[in-house]
Amino acid sequence: MPISDATQECISCHESINPGIVADWRMSRHSSILPKNAVLSPEISRKVSSQSIPKDFQNNVVGCAECHTMRSESHKDSFDHNGYTIHVVVSPNDCATCHSTESEQFKKNIMANAYGNLADNPVYQDLKNSINGTCVLKYGRPDYKPSDKLTDEESCLYCHGTKLEVTGTETRDTDAGDLEFPIISGWPNHGVGRINLDGSMGSCGACHSRHSFSIEMARKPETCKECHNGPDVPAYKVYTTSKHGNIYSAFGKNWDFKSVPWVIGKHFNAPTCATCHVSLLTNSIGEIVSKRTHQMSDRLSNRLFGLFYSHPYPKEPNTSIIKNKDKLPLPTTFTGEFASEFLIDKSEQIKRNEIMQASCLNCHASSWVKAHFIRLENTIKQTNASTLAGTSIMLDIWHKGFAFGPFDKGSMFDDAIEKQWSKIWLFYANNTRFASAMAGGGDYGVFADGRFELSNQIAILYDWLNIQTRLVRYTNTGF
Amino acid sequence: MPISDATQECISCHESINPGIVADWRMSRHSSILPKNAVLSPEISRKVSSQSIPKDFQNNVVGCAECHTMRSESHKDSFDHNGYTIHVVVSPNDCATCHSTESEQFKKNIMANAYGNLADNPVYQDLKNSINGTCVLKYGRPDYKPSDKLTDEESCLYCHGTKLEVTGTETRDTDAGDLEFPIISGWPNHGVGRINLDGSMGSCGACHSRHSFSIEMARKPETCKECHNGPDVPAYKVYTTSKHGNIYSAFGKNWDFKSVPWVIGKHFNAPTCATCHVSLLTNSIGEIVSKRTHQMSDRLSNRLFGLFYSHPYPKEPNTSIIKNKDKLPLPTTFTGEFASEFLIDKSEQIKRNEIMQASCLNCHASSWVKAHFIRLENTIKQTNASTLAGTSIMLDIWHKGFAFGPFDKGSMFDDAIEKQWSKIWLFYANNTRFASAMAGGGDYGVFADGRFELSNQIAILYDWLNIQTRLVRYTNTGF
Amino acid sequence: MPISDATQECISCHESINPGIVADWRMSRHSSILPKNAVLSPEISRKVSSQSIPKDFQNNVVGCAECHTMRSESHKDSFDHNGYTIHVVVSPNDCATCHSTESEQFKKNIMANAYGNLADNPVYQDLKNSINGTCVLKYGRPDYKPSDKLTDEESCLYCHGTKLEVTGTETRDTDAGDLEFPIISGWPNHGVGRINLDGSMGSCGACHSRHSFSIEMARKPETCKECHNGPDVPAYKVYTTSKHGNIYSAFGKNWDFKSVPWVIGKHFNAPTCATCHVSLLTNSIGEIVSKRTHQMSDRLSNRLFGLFYSHPYPKEPNTSIIKNKDKLPLPTTFTGEFASEFLIDKSEQIKRNEIMQASCLNCHASSWVKAHFIRLENTIKQTNASTLAGTSIMLDIWHKGFAFGPFDKGSMFDDAIEKQWSKIWLFYANNTRFASAMAGGGDYGVFADGRFELSNQIAILYDWLNIQTRLVRYTNTGF
Repeated sequence: MPISDATQECISCHESINPGIVADWRMSRHSSILPKNAVLSPEISRKVSSQSIPKDFQNNVVGCAECHTMRSESHKDSFDHNGYTIHVVVSPNDCATCHSTESEQFKKNIMANAYGNLADNPVYQDLKNSINGTCVLKYGRPDYKPSDKLTDEESCLYCHGTKLEVTGTETRDTDAGDLEFPIISGWPNHGVGRINLDGSMGSCGACHSRHSFSIEMARKPETCKECHNGPDVPAYKVYTTSKHGNIYSAFGKNWDFKSVPWVIGKHFNAPTCATCHVSLLTNSIGEIVSKRTHQMSDRLSNRLFGLFYSHPYPKEPNTSIIKNKDKLPLPTTFTGEFASEFLIDKSEQIKRNEIMQASCLNCHASSWVKAHFIRLENTIKQTNASTLAGTSIMLDIWHKGFAFGPFDKGSMFDDAIEKQWSKIWLFYANNTRFASAMAGGGDYGVFADGRFELSNQIAILYDWLNIQTRLVRYTNTGF
Repeated sequence: MPISDATQECISCHESINPGIVADWRMSRHSSILPKNAVLSPEISRKVSSQSIPKDFQNNVVGCAECHTMRSESHKDSFDHNGYTIHVVVSPNDCATCHSTESEQFKKNIMANAYGNLADNPVYQDLKNSINGTCVLKYGRPDYKPSDKLTDEESCLYCHGTKLEVTGTETRDTDAGDLEFPIISGWPNHGVGRINLDGSMGSCGACHSRHSFSIEMARKPETCKECHNGPDVPAYKVYTTSKHGNIYSAFGKNWDFKSVPWVIGKHFNAPTCATCHVSLLTNSIGEIVSKRTHQMSDRLSNRLFGLFYSHPYPKEPNTSIIKNKDKLPLPTTFTGEFASEFLIDKSEQIKRNEIMQASCLNCHASSWVKAHFIRLENTIKQTNASTLAGTSIMLDIWHKGFAFGPFDKGSMFDDAIEKQWSKIWLFYANNTRFASAMAGGGDYGVFADGRFELSNQIAILYDWLNIQTRLVRYTNTGF
Repeated sequence: MPISDATQECISCHESINPGIVADWRMSRHSSILPKNAVLSPEISRKVSSQSIPKDFQNNVVGCAECHTMRSESHKDSFDHNGYTIHVVVSPNDCATCHSTESEQFKKNIMANAYGNLADNPVYQDLKNSINGTCVLKYGRPDYKPSDKLTDEESCLYCHGTKLEVTGTETRDTDAGDLEFPIISGWPNHGVGRINLDGSMGSCGACHSRHSFSIEMARKPETCKECHNGPDVPAYKVYTTSKHGNIYSAFGKNWDFKSVPWVIGKHFNAPTCATCHVSLLTNSIGEIVSKRTHQMSDRLSNRLFGLFYSHPYPKEPNTSIIKNKDKLPLPTTFTGEFASEFLIDKSEQIKRNEIMQASCLNCHASSWVKAHFIRLENTIKQTNASTLAGTSIMLDIWHKGFAFGPFDKGSMFDDAIEKQWSKIWLFYANNTRFASAMAGGGDYGVFADGRFELSNQIAILYDWLNIQTRLVRYTNTGF
């Protein structure tokens, strides 16, 4: 296949310096098809969504130079390297050259906003600092300094994405002599909401891992596992314990994970994450069952992830703009009232459910599907009720002064009892709902971080309040 | 292959409505062999155990209509559908037409009784309600209403099986116009102890998933994982951390999971769950090592799952008939005394161990096998001793009135401290025994829900009792 | 292939008695190449490292008799068996006949010393007894007797290795009549630090499982999982949630796990455990990237596993010789001071990091690798700081007499609060560091046994101390 001179030059050095990168690329579709041919595929099987691809890119395979020298004026990390202006970090806006639809859709995905949704929300910053912050004792009591940048980068921001910044340049002694490189703060990172050096948000490599950029990989559930394993978002664990996951484990090795469209019953026999949430699906007679989406929210009616309660999906992917009735940047109040103006309404929920259920109906009768979603609705209601019970005790604890929380300008996450409270909605109500949504069996719905621990944690809150009450009543001690 | 006219008619519509179902069936053995030929296999490799198969079924492959119109008078969900009387839920009694031996054996399996074993035991209902029941605060204290039906169906009964009932009919607007369908309460479900609409118990689809009904799938450990992953029954987790699971992970992709009989060393190199518990095994010279069983208990000498203590296996699969010395429907008393009249005796245990060990001996010398089982016996003894220590503290707590339990007509599972107690035997003693039984390594036997947490939980009980004692002694407070 | 007469005689009986063992061996390299030919491979692809192999072994494949009759005078379990002097337990010193380099290296591996490192360290024995010891109530209080031998063998020593001893002989009724066999205490076991009956340490079969002794298996991460799954050493869990693990899950089924050398980008596209820690790696032009090591520590600069703090790697594989400033056999003091004379120095750390990083650089630019290790260094520092905060509270608890610990000649691990303290460094600080070291994502670094639980546990310690303080102050109760 024709390779551009520039890419050929990259390879000539880097194949021996970083053989793994080049080997990955050589097994990729990028290295084996010319853009001018890729666009000729029938609409239904086209992987290149851009209506027109710049002429310069049409006649060579997509290699190193194509992506790493593209739009160099937009990238703050562009630098001179052996006569080329290259940038280290390729962004979704670069990928948009050929994959414009996916890039546009992904901007509307809550994941693209994952950095700001965390960084611009004071409540989440409070949570983050109470977890990641360096713990020191102050008057014998644990105290958290705001977490340091390096810690955040490898923990929360591993998935949410870092904010990249060029902080200077450095000269490195390489095999090719002294060369100058940009220093990029926040790098490396491939989080879904990474703030790139051209101002764009996200990293396609989060799911389509460099440098094979494989659709096969993105369709396998292990890719999603990297960020959705729990206990807060236990999607992968629940999936692999479900009947769907079981069928994948038993037969998945024989499935075709590459074909576009993805034909139900022909290429695969049970859904992976991508099947329900992303992929273009057709049935055996070629009818489209689900359109491809990189927005994903168009199939999601509820946010199962409770903050503090499960709630209708937010209207906008930027959730930091949400304010509840108590002026907190959260989609629900402490007592479960929805910040409805920021959330989709019932009719939108119904519409989204229909899109989601279209794929279910290929293997299940409508009575099956209907009953499944009725159970899920019930579980959302019941777990929200349990969250209310637990949160009511927590409010009581705060009001009685047994812990300093949001009503005392204190952290609502740093005391031991507050952490027990946060487990209620952050871990156990979520697990229960994820297990319900994916028919993930009794395990994650009951004993494995499900209803058993949910009820346990509420009981622990009450037990602690009881001890405190008795201690204070009779001893008049503070704490 | 010849397909009946009725099945052909099903397919003509449903292949486009539910292509996944039809595709699954097309890859099944049911669609590719005629019963009249299936019965001609040599005894040792026959998959069809019925001695005679009704003539009507012999000359067409087993398709939609064969199973879904069979014995329609016995099924309460039979309804008229395009001129056929079909039923939604196919039961083990339907499968028995060709697979009579397996159906008979499964009736003697404790799993077939899993619905009633839970529903008809007041102690388990207490446990279930304390977990699944909607939690509300009553005078500021967590209180559990009995759990609702939808919650139970997707949690405990996901594995145990629901009780199906026809509650009415409904008209649905389908592609073929308005059609009437039965409304089935408890549906969907594929739990092992499902109560079917013909009165039979169980679902073959729990392990032989519809509509491929694959022996390959049932022999893979991921199938068992759906219900045996823990923390109460951590069989899969322990297996995948054992040497056996390791060999399966490394080489299983090359094994033959379909052949009957399953030849040790030829078709596979290490056991999966099915190898030890179910499958017909022969050695390389064709001798039968283990007979196939769908009863499973014929290889099980002890019930590792502690209620509250591990004990000799129950005589009958219906465990709700068991009464211990204290008149509780449990196989052991609070202090560990066995309800021996309901449990198998020593000689039966020895017999069952011999059957189980026959498969071990194919890859291990007898000294190895013997020593392994001596360790397991010791671990049963030691974990029972730890359970006794923890339960003695719990009894003390109840007797001192620090929690309302079985002696006060209260729940024995709803208080925080009772939940800590239940973790001792329900999670940690079980984990330790499962790890021992499957040589599952130090992990699940020590730090991962094993002996570390077992001893931890006992210490927590004592610590709590100590605080309560001091609180009450000096403040005379109730709680 | 030529098989020795002795081996042929073994097989003639054992192929029907233990067909699985023979089948495993038949698929092994041992059964399919003659040592005299194996030594002829070019240096880089030789699997047989011994410079000369005894003549007796050269012209037959390596079969039963070759290993089980070798060096019989050195093995205490040698016994007469059908005219041959065989021993049950083959040891690394036997394997050294052909694999001398690996055997020598493994002696310097901390794993080879795993039995003594546990057995000869009073602090670890205290920990072990508080976990494995039979729990009985003494004056109503949990009390631990030293753990029994059988329990230790299947828990801690499953991985660490047992100490084998011949305790007698027994006559068994076999198919071949009455035969006499040695009774071996501690058997079966394949722990990495097993004390063998020829005095050698370790078991090659821990990773190269009998009787296929496969390099393929040892290179797959599931082999490591058997002992490194957590929560104390969560390497496998972290790996499978990392990008590396994700790539392995997606594409590993197509990789070549057998070739020597293991060529980056040709045989595999992402590292498994063996890639970074053991294997001989070359790049695509045949240059050696990493030399094979069975010592492993030559690539490890820090011990991530905290005792109680993460620290520079010990100089010697025998860690029971370490004494900290407080005379405890630990590499750090309670307040985190290193027992530096027993630990490698900065220059050795730098050297080892360079060896480790050599493999990273094949797929990552140097700025990527550098930044990754800076984050790891920071995480070691921060988790050590958190461990100090938690341990300071624990010291306060001990000094105030709320728990009997090391300063009162009591166990430092048996009280409930001590167990909560040990979770800080044994589980949560370790998880956080392992997640950091392997770029294992937010999950194991935050919510899944990571920083969330680390900060939670510190808060729990403080909360408990607070309750105790108030109880004692106003009631003057002991506990």
